[in-house]
Amino acid sequence: MHRITPGDNNYTTILMSVLVVGSVALDSVETPFGKADNVLGGSGNFFSAAASHLAPVQLVGVIGSDYPVAELEHAFAGRPIDLSGVERAEGSSFRWRGRYRHDLNTAETLETHLGVFSNFRPKIPEQFRNAPFVFLGNIDPRLQLEVLTQVDRPKLVACDTMNFWIESRRPDLLKLLERVDLITLNDAEARQLTEEFNLVKAAKWIMNHGPRHVVIKKGEHGAFMFTESTIFFAPAFPLETVFDPTGAGDSFAGGFMGYLARTGDISETNLRRAVVYGSALGSFAVEKFSVERLLEIDATDIRNRVAEFHRLVNFEQDLT
Amino acid sequence: MHRITPGDNNYTTILMSVLVVGSVALDSVETPFGKADNVLGGSGNFFSAAASHLAPVQLVGVIGSDYPVAELEHAFAGRPIDLSGVERAEGSSFRWRGRYRHDLNTAETLETHLGVFSNFRPKIPEQFRNAPFVFLGNIDPRLQLEVLTQVDRPKLVACDTMNFWIESRRPDLLKLLERVDLITLNDAEARQLTEEFNLVKAAKWIMNHGPRHVVIKKGEHGAFMFTESTIFFAPAFPLETVFDPTGAGDSFAGGFMGYLARTGDISETNLRRAVVYGSALGSFAVEKFSVERLLEIDATDIRNRVAEFHRLVNFEQDLT
Repeated sequence: MHRITPGDNNYTTILMSVLVVGSVALDSVETPFGKADNVLGGSGNFFSAAASHLAPVQLVGVIGSDYPVAELEHAFAGRPIDLSGVERAEGSSFRWRGRYRHDLNTAETLETHLGVFSNFRPKIPEQFRNAPFVFLGNIDPRLQLEVLTQVDRPKLVACDTMNFWIESRRPDLLKLLERVDLITLNDAEARQLTEEFNLVKAAKWIMNHGPRHVVIKKGEHGAFMFTESTIFFAPAFPLETVFDPTGAGDSFAGGFMGYLARTGDISETNLRRAVVYGSALGSFAVEKFSVERLLEIDATDIRNRVAEFHRLVNFEQDLT
Repeated sequence: MHRITPGDNNYTTILMSVLVVGSVALDSVETPFGKADNVLGGSGNFFSAAASHLAPVQLVGVIGSDYPVAELEHAFAGRPIDLSGVERAEGSSFRWRGRYRHDLNTAETLETHLGVFSNFRPKIPEQFRNAPFVFLGNIDPRLQLEVLTQVDRPKLVACDTMNFWIESRRPDLLKLLERVDLITLNDAEARQLTEEFNLVKAAKWIMNHGPRHVVIKKGEHGAFMFTESTIFFAPAFPLETVFDPTGAGDSFAGGFMGYLARTGDISETNLRRAVVYGSALGSFAVEKFSVERLLEIDATDIRNRVAEFHRLVNFEQDLT
């Protein structure tokens, strides 16, 4: 697959890039508001669409011989998303079909076909190996570990995971934890991994096993970022219409990592802002199907939403 | 019942008082951490214990002939809580018995005995009728309306309600909504009342029916305050141990109304601070059984927790 960003684009010399390894899939989704068939989906796509508003993205993944490449290239045209790490393999692409009922908070998975994704072995192209920010999307922890052997001392490595790997690959996941700076996972996964119901305790457990930072995503209830001595919380943006929640978590991760890469700053102050950028991008993702809304918005939309987040939680302490 | 606050206490001339009509009950609670039998409970008690840190409280309620009055008076001794509106009736007191499993988010009610509470008709003592802040705890909306006929143009009237009244007293509840400035209710109740799943839409529905402000409490997931043109959100404080969630919502209301009464200021800026004071008092309430923790803390504890709330959500916007 060719690099589709313009040849004269020299962004990599301006901003730090973020490398993401994740799924490049096709989703079929039904919500109370409509349905979409075989639209661009997967953690890699949502992450890239979100992060590319903030920094250059290097995507590593695999697609089958049936993947609508022209559609993908069209969607990402003109964006700093380098697709040269997306490998094309013989076979069918990863497809997910799901449905949301009126509460929109939990997806009901109707079908999952891993296709070529089940034999995926990420190969990091030479020109991606010095990416300063690395996001290991939700794949087998053994593969996440393999990716880490292929990159040169990134400034920050973050990973995601899910219930399936927590159950089936626990020892590998624990090895991975020792090697990452930050993990993002949802509240149910944090509880499952740590066997602690309380999220403060769960976060401490995780930090004792490696990562300096733990981001626990609670979907419509917002996200916590824990460090050894601080807790930061950002609510989910209170939208009047959540159209399709698919990809919110991956878009959060894209906004978060994209903001870190854009600024090159991993101080606590900046990590907090990154959580808000993640929440902002996540809130856009759910306004339409697939990556549609993420491709419509511009820097002003993002800046305005970040300002709305500030108004949402801001209060002045009194001095009495 | 006698007024038990010190005779020389002239707080009513310094701070505005808050009148609360609610239940004065006995709770028996079982949590994963232990159990407590026949301890002080009910919305009136939790509200008063919380609000009295901030402003003088005038409590109106009813107790049965079996109520441990000495215990109540001892618990509230030295606090600006005027109990002269707590009527004693022949019969048994309101008793609630419940249990929380490990998730601590939903109470399982094992027994409810309304006792004298089922014939309660609130009578507002003459000296309470000009209270500038009035909180109508969760009782029959017909009684909440009766209270309003007995008070003189308060500066702000807020009410609470619950699923039972939404089902059985809908027309009265809608009449009440036209008469209150603010309502506090939880997310499930907001959805039930409005038949809107989305909380932003639910809040708009409620504001269209009367109240200028709607506070939607989401338990461990925090609280929203809606006005016509703004939304404010405060998370629940991320405690490492939630000991007993009973009374958190009533303590929130007490902290909220107490702060408004203390400051006499109902501007948006101050209402936001009041939500944080409510969240702070709610977070103390759940640290021990009954009103125990609320009676231990002092002004410094509260101020420190409010400061922690600020650190929890605070982020600096960048200027890029």
